[in-house]
Amino acid sequence: MKIAIINGPNLKFIGQRETNIYGKHSLKDLRKYILANIHNVKDLELDIYQSNSEGKLIDYIEEFWINKGNGIVINAGAYTHTSIALADCLKWINIPYIEVHLSNVYARESFRHKSFIAKNAVGVICGFGIDSYVLGVEALIKKIKVRGG
Amino acid sequence: MKIAIINGPNLKFIGQRETNIYGKHSLKDLRKYILANIHNVKDLELDIYQSNSEGKLIDYIEEFWINKGNGIVINAGAYTHTSIALADCLKWINIPYIEVHLSNVYARESFRHKSFIAKNAVGVICGFGIDSYVLGVEALIKKIKVRGG
Amino acid sequence: MKIAIINGPNLKFIGQRETNIYGKHSLKDLRKYILANIHNVKDLELDIYQSNSEGKLIDYIEEFWINKGNGIVINAGAYTHTSIALADCLKWINIPYIEVHLSNVYARESFRHKSFIAKNAVGVICGFGIDSYVLGVEALIKKIKVRGG
Amino acid sequence: MKIAIINGPNLKFIGQRETNIYGKHSLKDLRKYILANIHNVKDLELDIYQSNSEGKLIDYIEEFWINKGNGIVINAGAYTHTSIALADCLKWINIPYIEVHLSNVYARESFRHKSFIAKNAVGVICGFGIDSYVLGVEALIKKIKVRGG
Amino acid sequence: MKIAIINGPNLKFIGQRETNIYGKHSLKDLRKYILANIHNVKDLELDIYQSNSEGKLIDYIEEFWINKGNGIVINAGAYTHTSIALADCLKWINIPYIEVHLSNVYARESFRHKSFIAKNAVGVICGFGIDSYVLGVEALIKKIKVRGG
Amino acid sequence: MKIAIINGPNLKFIGQRETNIYGKHSLKDLRKYILANIHNVKDLELDIYQSNSEGKLIDYIEEFWINKGNGIVINAGAYTHTSIALADCLKWINIPYIEVHLSNVYARESFRHKSFIAKNAVGVICGFGIDSYVLGVEALIKKIKVRGG
Amino acid sequence: MKIAIINGPNLKFIGQRETNIYGKHSLKDLRKYILANIHNVKDLELDIYQSNSEGKLIDYIEEFWINKGNGIVINAGAYTHTSIALADCLKWINIPYIEVHLSNVYARESFRHKSFIAKNAVGVICGFGIDSYVLGVEALIKKIKVRGG
Amino acid sequence: MKIAIINGPNLKFIGQRETNIYGKHSLKDLRKYILANIHNVKDLELDIYQSNSEGKLIDYIEEFWINKGNGIVINAGAYTHTSIALADCLKWINIPYIEVHLSNVYARESFRHKSFIAKNAVGVICGFGIDSYVLGVEALIKKIKVRGG
Amino acid sequence: MKIAIINGPNLKFIGQRETNIYGKHSLKDLRKYILANIHNVKDLELDIYQSNSEGKLIDYIEEFWINKGNGIVINAGAYTHTSIALADCLKWINIPYIEVHLSNVYARESFRHKSFIAKNAVGVICGFGIDSYVLGVEALIKKIKVRGG
Amino acid sequence: MKIAIINGPNLKFIGQRETNIYGKHSLKDLRKYILANIHNVKDLELDIYQSNSEGKLIDYIEEFWINKGNGIVINAGAYTHTSIALADCLKWINIPYIEVHLSNVYARESFRHKSFIAKNAVGVICGFGIDSYVLGVEALIKKIKVRGG
Amino acid sequence: MKIAIINGPNLKFIGQRETNIYGKHSLKDLRKYILANIHNVKDLELDIYQSNSEGKLIDYIEEFWINKGNGIVINAGAYTHTSIALADCLKWINIPYIEVHLSNVYARESFRHKSFIAKNAVGVICGFGIDSYVLGVEALIKKIKVRGG
Amino acid sequence: MKIAIINGPNLKFIGQRETNIYGKHSLKDLRKYILANIHNVKDLELDIYQSNSEGKLIDYIEEFWINKGNGIVINAGAYTHTSIALADCLKWINIPYIEVHLSNVYARESFRHKSFIAKNAVGVICGFGIDSYVLGVEALIKKIKVRGG
Repeated sequence: MKIAIINGPNLKFIGQRETNIYGKHSLKDLRKYILANIHNVKDLELDIYQSNSEGKLIDYIEEFWINKGNGIVINAGAYTHTSIALADCLKWINIPYIEVHLSNVYARESFRHKSFIAKNAVGVICGFGIDSYVLGVEALIKKIKVRGG
Repeated sequence: MKIAIINGPNLKFIGQRETNIYGKHSLKDLRKYILANIHNVKDLELDIYQSNSEGKLIDYIEEFWINKGNGIVINAGAYTHTSIALADCLKWINIPYIEVHLSNVYARESFRHKSFIAKNAVGVICGFGIDSYVLGVEALIKKIKVRGG
Repeated sequence: MKIAIINGPNLKFIGQRETNIYGKHSLKDLRKYILANIHNVKDLELDIYQSNSEGKLIDYIEEFWINKGNGIVINAGAYTHTSIALADCLKWINIPYIEVHLSNVYARESFRHKSFIAKNAVGVICGFGIDSYVLGVEALIKKIKVRGG
Repeated sequence: MKIAIINGPNLKFIGQRETNIYGKHSLKDLRKYILANIHNVKDLELDIYQSNSEGKLIDYIEEFWINKGNGIVINAGAYTHTSIALADCLKWINIPYIEVHLSNVYARESFRHKSFIAKNAVGVICGFGIDSYVLGVEALIKKIKVRGG
Repeated sequence: MKIAIINGPNLKFIGQRETNIYGKHSLKDLRKYILANIHNVKDLELDIYQSNSEGKLIDYIEEFWINKGNGIVINAGAYTHTSIALADCLKWINIPYIEVHLSNVYARESFRHKSFIAKNAVGVICGFGIDSYVLGVEALIKKIKVRGG
Repeated sequence: MKIAIINGPNLKFIGQRETNIYGKHSLKDLRKYILANIHNVKDLELDIYQSNSEGKLIDYIEEFWINKGNGIVINAGAYTHTSIALADCLKWINIPYIEVHLSNVYARESFRHKSFIAKNAVGVICGFGIDSYVLGVEALIKKIKVRGG
Repeated sequence: MKIAIINGPNLKFIGQRETNIYGKHSLKDLRKYILANIHNVKDLELDIYQSNSEGKLIDYIEEFWINKGNGIVINAGAYTHTSIALADCLKWINIPYIEVHLSNVYARESFRHKSFIAKNAVGVICGFGIDSYVLGVEALIKKIKVRGG
Repeated sequence: MKIAIINGPNLKFIGQRETNIYGKHSLKDLRKYILANIHNVKDLELDIYQSNSEGKLIDYIEEFWINKGNGIVINAGAYTHTSIALADCLKWINIPYIEVHLSNVYARESFRHKSFIAKNAVGVICGFGIDSYVLGVEALIKKIKVRGG
Repeated sequence: MKIAIINGPNLKFIGQRETNIYGKHSLKDLRKYILANIHNVKDLELDIYQSNSEGKLIDYIEEFWINKGNGIVINAGAYTHTSIALADCLKWINIPYIEVHLSNVYARESFRHKSFIAKNAVGVICGFGIDSYVLGVEALIKKIKVRGG
Repeated sequence: MKIAIINGPNLKFIGQRETNIYGKHSLKDLRKYILANIHNVKDLELDIYQSNSEGKLIDYIEEFWINKGNGIVINAGAYTHTSIALADCLKWINIPYIEVHLSNVYARESFRHKSFIAKNAVGVICGFGIDSYVLGVEALIKKIKVRGG
Repeated sequence: MKIAIINGPNLKFIGQRETNIYGKHSLKDLRKYILANIHNVKDLELDIYQSNSEGKLIDYIEEFWINKGNGIVINAGAYTHTSIALADCLKWINIPYIEVHLSNVYARESFRHKSFIAKNAVGVICGFGIDSYVLGVEALIKKIKVRGG
Repeated sequence: MKIAIINGPNLKFIGQRETNIYGKHSLKDLRKYILANIHNVKDLELDIYQSNSEGKLIDYIEEFWINKGNGIVINAGAYTHTSIALADCLKWINIPYIEVHLSNVYARESFRHKSFIAKNAVGVICGFGIDSYVLGVEALIKKIKVRGG
């Protein structure tokens, strides 16, 4: 089972900045953290990707589609709120994906309450820091298995 | 650890209606399902409540506050989008709570994209059917432990 | 054929207040008035209900669904304009219902022009005083018969 | 008692098109259908008119006013939502009129939820197919009698 | 002279929570506090009521109307901003009422700036903590006397 | 000098209806009234036209353009607020025109505050009853002379 | 008959600036120009006032009210669009007034299409340069005479 | 193959007015121009129609439907932006149609950016002057052939 | 204790105009009326000011700040709804102030529901005629004492 | 004559995905398809470019400008609706361009009805699948020739 | 070279209030501070003006225009956001002006993001405290020289 | 002191295009021009960067943060109005930055009046052509020194 963890702009340096909010886990620790916290890791191939560029995120997702990936957990950062292009891509590849955020976006500026990508997602998880990814991966595995069966 | 699972209007008969969407688990099965699917159930006291009445939901939450409950997972149904009264209550009791939904509300009518209660929640989880509750309880336990420590 | 006539908030005392607008028929007279004015009353079971509480109205409708009611004529009063919860309930029970109002809501404040429950109704009738109910019951019987056939 | 049944644009060919929605009754059958379904037809003069032109509809209504018509049942079609001119006319002639629609306009696009003519109507009836006219005529006769007395 | 002091949702525990904002006076102290602070208490019958339920608040007001109450001071809490049903009730009973709030609602979220009940009130008083009630009762007594004379 | 006085929908029967508002002057009296009240009537050719149809009003204006008319005073009635087609026509013919209204449209519903035709008019005059036409003709003559010189 | 011609901000130097738009008539010439162009000047007392200050304009109008003025022609300049205070004043003095503008405000920025003072005016005249005042005075005299009679 | 070229208001005199924008081709030249510029004209029956009246345009389209026309190229002029009636008609006849405009409507006022008829069209072509028709006919023929096969 | 009673535009002549609404008390009576109706007048220095000018109101408040005034009761009239400048001033002087209105502004036009100055006020009182001032002074004295202690 | 066919995000894999909507022509076939379907291909240099990156699309267009390209047919995909940067670029290079879309964007979500790039385009063509490009190239060649002459 | 530094409402006491935000420089120090911090002060005549009154600010600017001033640096305070009258004045005098603010208005309430005077300014500078004036004067001198040359 | 001058999309070729607006200075001249026009250049390290890509601009800023840059002057071009991602980045790096524009954005389309990055900037400077950069660098140096002290 191939799952991609995709991270949008400004997520390159988590763990180094504003650690009181985002905790001390860096992107590099992310794989280890997820694997340590989910319960069904057998045969799980986890690919973690980050880019600040809207276009490269789409390039990556298209590549993932070509390689027949099974599911996506995506924290699209600010592109969540502005990118129709990214949302279109996540829709046409027709691979189940889950939208996650570190912070509770509803406790922030109103322009962060709108998501172009939520509509076609399986579901949305936000507000649990790095655990949002863990919950997302867990939910995704379950979803893929149900689908697969 | 006392956790309340609070359900708003139109959630009394899940498991009986539109089972293709919501699955066959009824509210009565909910406790069993959650306990079977989370990993840290020791000392966990789970109270499941449902009401169609905005006022009674507030009454219940006030009661829970008096009884020093530790956390809340709430699927407020349609009151999510219309009840400032419920949102005020969840705020002043100052007990961590998580907003969950069975369906992905962002794939539905736009008036369901607005939540009065999301702002002061720890986080939001939606779109995973009955598993939204499971993920919510897991995240809540973690949150309470961090807080407690 | 079981038909419910459901009345929302502030309809308890029609016939006693503002009789120049609403006429002198009280809720108690309603059954008699309807039966006297429709033409096909054989086998017609008419249940008249009123509550000021959004939650109790939903409770009643759920009960009606359990008892396999055939159709609903509903004057939801102000909840017409504010209650997504009530609208959700009327949708999922999947029983034909007709929205009625005593007054012509379009001749009043603009916030009364919006109805959450109209979308899934068979139709809407407003402006004819107590006769709105009569017209609603007539139309409903016809609808149920067509459906039933 | 002279009553006009006025039909706006795109209503010329009902009965021939989309019969699954609008039924098989043509405009020509309309008079017969109404007379067969109401209960007080004595002394009832029924004039059925249709035009695709906003201006001609107003011309017709002015003519009806000159001829001292008693009441109007109007299905203004799309002009319901766009014609202030038609609404102005229906207001100044000061003859009671009822707005009807074949379909439930609230189940359709949001621009159909706005009616310029509803405000000064006696009432509004929609969603009952050709029976909307029947209910409208019944209600109108009652209204005229009350007024007349 | 019968005056009702009506309190909406989340006002049950004032005096116990957030005492730095709302002071230490509980709902139970409210009668004593008001009587101690107004100057014309002779023949004054003060009924203090609280409910978290929109429907029960309307029930109470209808009861008060039946019992020929003279005036109302109402702190409708969050229902101020969402309840057309409550506003309708306060209008049709035709008893003078004054809208009060503990806090200055204009210093808070913009959705608290809108009040459905203010329009038909005698006046509005907000921002003075428990003294808002005192000022409201004083103003109400004056109003009733002027009216009565 | 050829001037057209163009009247839109619902202006056919002024002088016969709502005479307390619009006075007793009919469309037929209009020419005489204008000529009696302006001061420079030599060589003035006055053509008065009325239609309830948006299309015929445009037809008439095109005809007037072919016949090299010099100026237009137009009371477009409700089409003022809805007809882009009429506004386009008045623009491309490139003949000076003045928008007039019998009533003060700003004292009426807000949808009457918007005019599609005002933008390219010489000016706007409203609120003076039948004298709005007189003032309009006077101003137009002056305008044409200035232009012509 | 005492009539005031009131001019708001930025009208002090007409005749000196942008003369291609506003013509060469200065405020000082205004009285002479008006008297030369209207036809009924007997017993006409014309007071011309200009101020850049919202407050002083109100002071002047109050003074005019004390002195029992008969009518007002007002070009409120930019205060037309922003001053509720001025509009309130023009309303309570209960003296007929006419709103005029030199330019056609509907051909300019959309914020100039809104007038706070139009609602309670007798009428509005705009787009005729200095002749807007002449037409305004003519219309006002007629209005006062009708009223007076 | 019967194709109608339908022209709305203000298109009667193209070729005579504003020729710098619209070119020198009149409506009469249109057929010849189209036939000279498309490549597949065999068996092509081209009917060119123009009316300033919304109602007559609908009459014409209904007639075309009765006569079993194959496709429509429509330049609805200003009715594009205001006529729900026309849009309804183009939808129910269920004949493929293409919306065209001479000018690029997106370079003009924002009210021209909205089209009621675009939604159910095959496609939209604008900005190419008289060639918009040519491109439209070409695209339509292709569409009809694909459909027909 | 120095308290200023500040009155904005159109309040100069209360007591003389619309006395059925505002009563017969003039601005001159105001001091006497307040002193007669509050209960704690010892050491109370009351300064009553009125101006129609936004700028002079600010000048006065700045002066009051220099003179170390203790509190303000302000009826800013129409400037309540339009003056950010006045609101800024009331904020920076950091003296407690109370917003009052004679009428219930929520029963009037919607543009009167917005107040720029309410946000930083202690509280708001409206709808009680001249008694709004009395209630305001009473509340203000209490506030100052609490603060002072 | 150098013409660029520029394709924005999510257009890399047309012909491979959703072939029922977009047909089976891939980007690679595009050149061949266009050349086979237009009629004036002599001296035509066709450069086909695709990128998912907003920045690279601008880079490409700047390069095209340096190389003195003659015209552009652009399908900007989702950037049509969100990219002011791309629109600015297409404007300043001052090379004629045509906006095309495979699908009829007006039949889709409302956020696709807004185009930042349409305003300065020669024209817009949408809804004809791959033929939108063909029509675009034809129209562009004509435009360039007219310009050039 | 005559340059005016114009200050709107609430700027009289900078240097005395909120010195942590605005610094300790008073209006009186302003001239000295500017002269000390710019580099080209020869022949520079600097006139510093402040008023709380919209009308007086316009009076001053008109006076400056009469005296043939060369340029203006204006901090219009709150009138920036509300005064069309001031904006009109700054436009018609046709003297280059620069809008400055002490604070970064974009970091404050959204109603401060709108400026009526920015449109016709040379440019806008905000956020640099008293240095905003210095930068403004520098930029203005450069502008005037370029213009003059 | 390390300062970055960051330029967004469409700024690569200033000096070559629209030189009447932007002057003849190219990006390459920018460093020289700035150094020639500010007064405190000792120890100033100036890095000038341009990219058309939102993602690369963020990459660059992150790099600058790693290298402990002291301040940023940014002309983000069109990304100013659309990029939340860029704004987020400029916020979290916590380095003082100033927003500049060549043109006065408030004199252009309304979508250019909104800036996502202004809120957290030190200040904003626009409208002075290439001098906007000079003023920005001057202001930034001052800011950094104050901060550093």
